[in-house]
Amino acid sequence: MKYIKIFSPGSVANVSCGFDVLGFCLDNIGDEMLISKTKAPGIRISKITGQDLPMEVKKNVAGVAAKAMLKYHPVKFGFEIEIHKKIKPGSGIGSSAASAAGVVFGINELIGKPFSNHELIRFAMEGEALASGSYHADNVAPVLMGGFTLVRSIKPIDVIKLPYPSELRAIVLHPKIELRTMHAREILKDKVSLEKAISQWGNLAAFISALYTKDFDLMSRSLVDEIVEPVRSLLIPEFETIKKAVIKEGALGFGISGSGPSVYALAKGSKNGNRIAYKMKSIINQLGIDFDIYISKINNQGIKIISD
Amino acid sequence: MKYIKIFSPGSVANVSCGFDVLGFCLDNIGDEMLISKTKAPGIRISKITGQDLPMEVKKNVAGVAAKAMLKYHPVKFGFEIEIHKKIKPGSGIGSSAASAAGVVFGINELIGKPFSNHELIRFAMEGEALASGSYHADNVAPVLMGGFTLVRSIKPIDVIKLPYPSELRAIVLHPKIELRTMHAREILKDKVSLEKAISQWGNLAAFISALYTKDFDLMSRSLVDEIVEPVRSLLIPEFETIKKAVIKEGALGFGISGSGPSVYALAKGSKNGNRIAYKMKSIINQLGIDFDIYISKINNQGIKIISD
Repeated sequence: MKYIKIFSPGSVANVSCGFDVLGFCLDNIGDEMLISKTKAPGIRISKITGQDLPMEVKKNVAGVAAKAMLKYHPVKFGFEIEIHKKIKPGSGIGSSAASAAGVVFGINELIGKPFSNHELIRFAMEGEALASGSYHADNVAPVLMGGFTLVRSIKPIDVIKLPYPSELRAIVLHPKIELRTMHAREILKDKVSLEKAISQWGNLAAFISALYTKDFDLMSRSLVDEIVEPVRSLLIPEFETIKKAVIKEGALGFGISGSGPSVYALAKGSKNGNRIAYKMKSIINQLGIDFDIYISKINNQGIKIISD
Repeated sequence: MKYIKIFSPGSVANVSCGFDVLGFCLDNIGDEMLISKTKAPGIRISKITGQDLPMEVKKNVAGVAAKAMLKYHPVKFGFEIEIHKKIKPGSGIGSSAASAAGVVFGINELIGKPFSNHELIRFAMEGEALASGSYHADNVAPVLMGGFTLVRSIKPIDVIKLPYPSELRAIVLHPKIELRTMHAREILKDKVSLEKAISQWGNLAAFISALYTKDFDLMSRSLVDEIVEPVRSLLIPEFETIKKAVIKEGALGFGISGSGPSVYALAKGSKNGNRIAYKMKSIINQLGIDFDIYISKINNQGIKIISD
């Protein structure tokens, strides 16, 4: 195998009660990457389309992740990377994770798969750290492993893949406003009330149970975030208005995707998903904010090979 | 049915990462209760053996729970209650929960089961509130519903029964020292660090997943409590010594049962359970503290009818 072309999907992290630990993988939004073996050793980013991002390896998320991986597993040849960005950085649907996870997945294929997808997480996290200033795996994990993932620990990496009902649909609305992850993180308080923390872990535990038992009602009752959402949602225009409207339309839950400004809803089935998306669009249109919207199945595979 | 005799079991609440929400039901330690219909209306506690507890209805946990239930569902006759306490109050294995849950279960049977066991939780909670000064369901829920239970919410009551592998054994050590629930609750801080809270809900979510998938290794990795245990364990003699020793003996986890002073370990299979219990005994014997120890299956049924 001399080259590999992949689709590296977007993802939703910080799924309400699962702040910092729970994420899922999207199916119809993602970057394309072409990674080719080169005779000359080292890594070179040869082309980036769609976004204005640094081509310099140590300043590029994919470059940093690839370097971390090859440091651990040196090879005698090199790699040339083309990145065709479809996910806008800073959108809250895992743009940097797609680049970081995509590159390590691709290189792993080209060198004969010495690493499991679970093992690749830690290399991808190095890229994430460049983008956000801190180590987190809640986007790269669902991209690399597919489906819903739970990041129990990042040191050591311990990620659990969770089941989910196939009817589940995610509706993701990206209002095109600027919101830096670092800023969204800064406004969080270091301490939280024990009472709210207990409520949060009760809800997350219930949501995990509901994923196993396909209990949509329980999903709906437990998709609550009393800790982060009340603070971060203040940065998102008309968050409460959209939330009320989509819950009324039958969404199982609604919350901030990643650290925003994207928001997500979960729904049972495509019909509900379409109706909820329509509602979201009608509200955001009134605000005069440019946006993208996606209605997606949960992507159980994660990164997909387009050709090799 | 004129009378009912029941076994109302002990329970372990605050299961490490599941503080305030996760509990399980024990099989071989519990109170016996005899509840008889009387022509005269009202509730009368006619006999208590095993412990020195108030016979006055409004001062007795079982009395208060029974009153709460009958206020909601009035009947023209009355009830006489005999309580044979085997679980010592203040031991941390749900003594008040056994009384409160037992009485509402028994009366429910005698009046033709108007309530589901899930519905009985809120009446039993009234008894719990008398004993501990606050409303909590994490002991009465496993006693009434059996097995492992997750209390997602108490207002409204939302309790989820969880599966577990049948090989699971609980080892419960009750060092006979005084430790009031209210005191154990007072030493907790109102605020916790967000970082530790995230770690706690990641661990609880992983433990729930492990119960569904019967993943003993994951259970072992996730039975961690960085929030409550470090504070409350200071009240329990040689907590860390016992913990280290039983983990070395292969316990899946070890923590405080309820608010102590009892401690619990979970183990895979009876053989491990016996070895762990032996280890616990040898340490506590050296300390010269009187104790009880139980090796129990998880009781999936909860309260058992002895005769009616």
